Amino acid sequence: MEFDHVGIAVRSIVASLPKWELALGVRASAPEEVAAQHVRVAFLEVGPTHLELLEPTDPSSTISRFLETRGEGMHHIAFGVPSVSQQLAEIAQRGDRLIDRVGRPGARGRTVGFAHPSAFGGVLVEFVERR
Amino acid sequence: MEFDHVGIAVRSIVASLPKWELALGVRASAPEEVAAQHVRVAFLEVGPTHLELLEPTDPSSTISRFLETRGEGMHHIAFGVPSVSQQLAEIAQRGDRLIDRVGRPGARGRTVGFAHPSAFGGVLVEFVERR
Repeated sequence: MEFDHVGIAVRSIVASLPKWELALGVRASAPEEVAAQHVRVAFLEVGPTHLELLEPTDPSSTISRFLETRGEGMHHIAFGVPSVSQQLAEIAQRGDRLIDRVGRPGARGRTVGFAHPSAFGGVLVEFVERR
Repeated sequence: MEFDHVGIAVRSIVASLPKWELALGVRASAPEEVAAQHVRVAFLEVGPTHLELLEPTDPSSTISRFLETRGEGMHHIAFGVPSVSQQLAEIAQRGDRLIDRVGRPGARGRTVGFAHPSAFGGVLVEFVERR
C-alpha cells in the first residue's frame, strides 16, 4: 500500500490554491467536478503523492457538512491499493464499518472507496485503485 | 518540497497501532517520547512517506487539547524542506502566522517547525529538515 493523497476541505479552490501553490512550488491540476459527490477537486503534486483540495458544489455535499461543523482543514487520507473492492471486503471481514461496500468511480477516472472513520480511529480513509 | 508524514492524534498508541499495522502491512517504529512537546510518537512507513501517531503524555500537551475538542483524527501534515528556519522566514515574510519562528528539535532527531493553521487555510503544517 502506498500513500496516494491527503484531502483538504476548502470553501473555495480558487481562494485556497495560491497559498498551496506558492508553498509547494507546484501548479495544481485543472479543477474537476465529481458530480456524484457534489464536489469540485484540484490536485497538487508533491513528489509521488498529492494534496487534493475539495470544494462543495452544493449544500448536500458531505464537504459542506464538514465545513459547517469543523471548518476548513484536513478531511481524509488516501492509499493506493491493487483492488479497492478487495480492500473494503477485508475491512468488513474484520468487523469494521465501511462507507462504500464496493469501489465506485472517483476523481481522475480512478476507482475509489471509503472506510468509515471508526475503522481507523477517527480518520476517514479512502482507497484508490492503482492504474 | 516533498511529503514527509501525516500526524494523527490518538489517545493511545498501543491501542491504535494494530489496525494501522494490519491495514498498511508494516510494523511501526518503537514509540519515542518528545519531552518538549509532551507527546509520545510512533511512525509507520508508507513508501517514501509516513504516518505519525501522536499520544499525549500529559494534559498540557497540545494533543490533549486537540483530543478534547475534536477527538482522535488527523492533526497535521508535514513536508520535508532543505531549511526549516528559512521556510518559516518566507511564510512570515508573506505576512502569515507561525507557531515556531525558527526550527527546533523534533522526533527522529530532526529539526522541525510549525506554521499557524491560518497560514494554510485551517491545516496545521509542519516542516521537517532533510538530513
